[in-house]
Order: sequence, then structure tokens, then C-alpha cells
Amino acid sequence: MGDLPMNKKNKISEVKYFETNKTFKFENGETIENLTIAYTVNGRLNLNKDNAILVCHAFTGDSNVTLWWSNFVGKNKAIDINKYFVICSNVLGGCSGTTGPSSKKSKGNSYYGTDFPTFTIKDIVKAQKILIDYLGIKKLYCVVGGSMGGMQALQWTATYPDTIKKAIIIASSMTHSPMQIALNEIARQAITEDNEWYGGKYYGISSPDKGLALARMLGHITYMSEEYMREKFGRKRKKSLKYFTPSFEVENYLHYNGEKFTTRFDANSFLYLTKAMDFFDVRDEIKKIKTKKNISLNKVLIISFISDWLYPSSQSVDIVDAYNHSNIETEFHEIKSNYGHDAFLIKNEEQAKYIHNFLKS
Amino acid sequence: MGDLPMNKKNKISEVKYFETNKTFKFENGETIENLTIAYTVNGRLNLNKDNAILVCHAFTGDSNVTLWWSNFVGKNKAIDINKYFVICSNVLGGCSGTTGPSSKKSKGNSYYGTDFPTFTIKDIVKAQKILIDYLGIKKLYCVVGGSMGGMQALQWTATYPDTIKKAIIIASSMTHSPMQIALNEIARQAITEDNEWYGGKYYGISSPDKGLALARMLGHITYMSEEYMREKFGRKRKKSLKYFTPSFEVENYLHYNGEKFTTRFDANSFLYLTKAMDFFDVRDEIKKIKTKKNISLNKVLIISFISDWLYPSSQSVDIVDAYNHSNIETEFHEIKSNYGHDAFLIKNEEQAKYIHNFLKS
Repeated sequence: MGDLPMNKKNKISEVKYFETNKTFKFENGETIENLTIAYTVNGRLNLNKDNAILVCHAFTGDSNVTLWWSNFVGKNKAIDINKYFVICSNVLGGCSGTTGPSSKKSKGNSYYGTDFPTFTIKDIVKAQKILIDYLGIKKLYCVVGGSMGGMQALQWTATYPDTIKKAIIIASSMTHSPMQIALNEIARQAITEDNEWYGGKYYGISSPDKGLALARMLGHITYMSEEYMREKFGRKRKKSLKYFTPSFEVENYLHYNGEKFTTRFDANSFLYLTKAMDFFDVRDEIKKIKTKKNISLNKVLIISFISDWLYPSSQSVDIVDAYNHSNIETEFHEIKSNYGHDAFLIKNEEQAKYIHNFLKS
Repeated sequence: MGDLPMNKKNKISEVKYFETNKTFKFENGETIENLTIAYTVNGRLNLNKDNAILVCHAFTGDSNVTLWWSNFVGKNKAIDINKYFVICSNVLGGCSGTTGPSSKKSKGNSYYGTDFPTFTIKDIVKAQKILIDYLGIKKLYCVVGGSMGGMQALQWTATYPDTIKKAIIIASSMTHSPMQIALNEIARQAITEDNEWYGGKYYGISSPDKGLALARMLGHITYMSEEYMREKFGRKRKKSLKYFTPSFEVENYLHYNGEKFTTRFDANSFLYLTKAMDFFDVRDEIKKIKTKKNISLNKVLIISFISDWLYPSSQSVDIVDAYNHSNIETEFHEIKSNYGHDAFLIKNEEQAKYIHNFLKS
């Protein structure tokens, strides 16, 4: 551990697989055997084992944190792998190595599909805790996440405030607003109405790519700000061959990204993960952290972006209030950025500085 | 004309049909015969024929203005039919009586479907002008419209500034931003990817109801503000039978309205009209009004709503600037309302006052 072969660009990490030998029990009571967790580690775990940082990925991310968050994780980056031991695992129910709906059942040769237990953000975090235990880490120095990753970080502080010292929550929310739920439902509807979805039993037969692409197209709109779209696309267009095909650049951009997405993401994972986000509601748990024993969590950094209309700053302000209710110290910054929700992934000196200083303090 | 049988509630107007006997030529050069225009009239045309107001309906509206805009059109309302002669016609390419893709071709027995000429907002307005001529009105006192209706009013001022005296443009834009185009494209994609769309030749065979419902669901999100959705739905939910079916109230609301919409609207009209809006770009024409002769247009009222994120106030400010460029007097109000884009349809004393005073002045 902690001694990884890395390529010259310091970006792609080796993905490891840990198969649990205990039954994994979901919040809803259901169980699965042989849960496999795909993860990466970067940097070295020190002798005291107190320099470990868990990065939780966003909705469609994966364990390869040095790839998708290369702006913030790497040598001499805000999360410096010269100093910290950085762990990132693909979420439970995902489709990048960790067991999920597209995995084969432990018995027989069939895929889970929609037989996969319905899971929550709490279940995702529980699986991460099993990995942390397996890695021999008693206390995490910090748990970090943006968007759905922020939800996991929030849940870590609520469930295991005795196992972490710090948390960083970026462009996230304690609970989805009706607008966020509504947008997710449109995306889900696009998938489940696709004739190739077959009630989720499409593996080896087909793939609801059209619905999944449409869902992703909608997602992309919500990840950008109106201002950024104006700058990036304006009303530029080229003549399309048919009237009802894309002609504006913004349309072509969405179509390209929608189709590309279907080659790397599973439609059922999309459904399960959006539902887990919509049902997520950690507010009361955050407010009750103070009633827990042996709390090691002592400070939380919260960051939002002014142009993020999907996870608006008001939701981050709510997070600050909830932690204050539990007497947990917070540091909050609303960053001026034009990039909308995607801002948390994009190079930003201000965000880097806040993260760096918060980890150093 | 002007002496309508009306029911006691003063709401439902009798829809009349006017069939043109001249070939209608579209902006793209194509033609159709026997264009029929469905319209309503309310109030009495005075002897001077100078009290006529044309109301242009929004995207999915129809000619029955005393029904869908009963908050503002009626006896003693902001647009008082005791005083004014109010005309409203279903748009060219629509599906509520005026010739459109779901109409039968003038020759033979087949439906237009996607053989219907691609049309623009300018074509829609041209059809309205034919109706106004037929009604014997030389000069309209005012053209009024919200959203896509506002686009038509904008186009009227640009094409026929010698035929109108005033215009009212509410929650609208001179041109769609990339975000507006992107949202429309998702909706179109939902329809054209529906297996029942059959390239637009579905009449008499099937109906792409699932895609159309999905498109409408997305529309509904954009018509509301986040704040209003919070107040109306919050996170209220009931247990759903299956996991991937709606459980939150906001989801049920969207599904209900999506399905209801398919009983009254045609999918091809949806496609054509959204394209007409996306291609609409009247900015340069507005700026060139001053070069036209015999301009009777002397004042334009522009209204926007603070919580409307689909047609944000900045787009109305742009409209004001463009008219000022043509030395046309403007009056602009941004109204505080929680209802988002739908605000222009909802009862509002402030909006009523501005319209009433503007018409009186």
C-alpha cells in the first residue's frame, strides 16, 4: 500500500480490488455476499497511520481520483500525495469495479440488474468504512467530496464522527430540493422508458443507450451555468442535414457527450445512484452529532460556487448551520466562478488554497 | 364579430375558423393551400376599428384567451373586453384548430406530419396578419404576448411597425440562449427517440406519448422557480410500490402533467414550435425598425419576473436596449414573483396594473 507504480504524468492510478468475505447488509435489511470494492491509493501511509485522506467521488466518477481530480490531487497539489495517503474507491452500486447492478450475482451466472438491493448514501459509506478497516486505518485525517461525494463526506461526519478528524464538502447538499429530485426523475424516466431497458434486465441482450444518453444530456445542462454556456457556445451553429437534428453547437456538444457517456456508464447504476441521492436526508443526523461519544471530528470546510444553480450556495449555508448546531467548527467559502456545478472539478487557485490551508491547519 | 355568445363565467369563447383562399408562402419558400386559422374574438370592434388587441399565445396555448389568460383578459380585467376587441388565434403549425403537422394535406387524405414546411415565428406572425386583414382591421391598437407569445409580439413590431400602435412583451426574449436551446433539444430528443414517433408519420397508427410526456415534464420544471417548488412540494412523498416509480410529490406532479399533456398536444407541433423558437433571432430587425417608413408603433411595455430563470430579466433588458436603439419608447418592469416563468399566467395585481395603465395611456 502507498507505494504505487505511477505513470510519468502522475495521473492514472492502479485500481485494486478488495473482496469482502463477510456478508454485506444494506440499510433496508437485504444482504449480498462477496462485495468487491475497487479502489486506488496514492502516496504513503505513515507509521502512525494518521495521514490518510478518503476522497469520495461524485455521481459518475470512479476510483481513479488522480485522473478525474488531477487539479487537486497529486504531487504538490492541494491534496499533496507527497504528504498524504489518498484513498478513493468506486461507490457501492457503481459500475467501475465495485459491486453494483451490472455485477454478476455471487451464486449462479446471472446479473443483479434491478434485483440489486436498493441502497442509500449510508450504505455507500458503510462499504467505504469496510475498506478503511481493511487498510488498517483507525482514523481518517480527512474525508473529502464534491457533489454526491460531498453527500458521502456529510454521511461520514454523521455516522463516524469518531473515525475522522476533518471533512471537506464541496458543491453539495444535505438533502435534495424538489428541483433536484425533479431533474433526476426526468433522467430516470428517459432510461426506464427506453425500450431496451427491459425492466433493468438488459445485460447481455441490449442496452438502454438512447435513454441513458438523454439522461446524461440533461445532466450536462445542469452542470454548467447559463453564463458559461453563453461564452462557450453562444448561438454558433452549422447547417444540419435534417431539420430535427442538432444544428446549434450546444446541441452537438450535448449529443456527443450523451453518446460518449453510454460507453462508460451503466443505466441501472444511474437509476440506483440518483435514487440514493434523492432519498438522502442527513440534516437531522448532522444536528445530532453532538450527542455522539468520542467525537474526533473537529472542523469542516464547506465550499460552494456562485454560479452553481444545481447545488446552490444556500444549500451549503444550510450545512454550515447544521454543523454549528452540533458545535462543530466550520469554514465556509462561496467561490466566484463561472463554471456552474462543474466548477469543483475545474482548476481553481482559490479552491486549491482553501483545501491546502484547511488540511495544513 | 365582437358579439360573442359567452357563458356565465365569461371564460370560454367560441372558436371560429377562417380558411384562406390564397396560397400561404413560408419564409423558406415552401407553400401550402387552404391554410385554416382558428381564432376567437371578444368584445366589440368599434366604428373606427381602432380598439383591436391581438393576444399571441405561448408555446402550448391556444386561441381561447379568455380561458388560459382569464386573469388578465375579460370584462373589467386589465385587457377589458368592455373596451377592447380582443383577438387570439392558434399559431400556424399548432394543433388547436390552425393548420399544422397534424392536419390533413389539402390534396389527398394523408397528414402533413414532418412534410409540413419548417416555419418560423415570422411565418406565425404572417398568418396572424392575414387574419387581421380578413377581420378588416387596418391598425392594431396593441399586440400582447408572454413567452413565445412575446416573441410573436416582438416580430410584429419588427415586421409591421406601421400596423400596430403598442406592444406588450412579457417574460420573453429576442433570441434563445444556449441553455434554452439545450433544454428544448432534450425535449425534442425525448420525442424523436420514442419508438412510436416513426419519423413523424405516426398519425392514425400510434402516438409518441411517452416521449411527449417526458418533454412536458422537463418543461414544467423550467416553468417553475426553485423556491416555488420548495413551497409547493418540499420533500413530501408517499411510499411507491416499486423503487423506480415516483414517490416524491414533485415526481407525481410531473408525471400527472406530462401524461395529461399528451391528450391535448401534438408531438410534431412540439418539435416544430420549439425549433421555431430556437431559430428565432429578431435583435437586428428590432434595431432596424427606425429605418422603416410610416411607423405607428410608439411605445412598448416589457415585463419580466425576478424568479423566471428560463427567460431571465436580462433578456428583457436586452429588449429594452434594442428598442431604444430604434428610438422606440419603452416601459420596463421586473416584477417580484415567486412563480418563475409561469408567473405571466398567474393572477398578479402588479402585472394587471401595468398592462391596464399602458393600454390606457
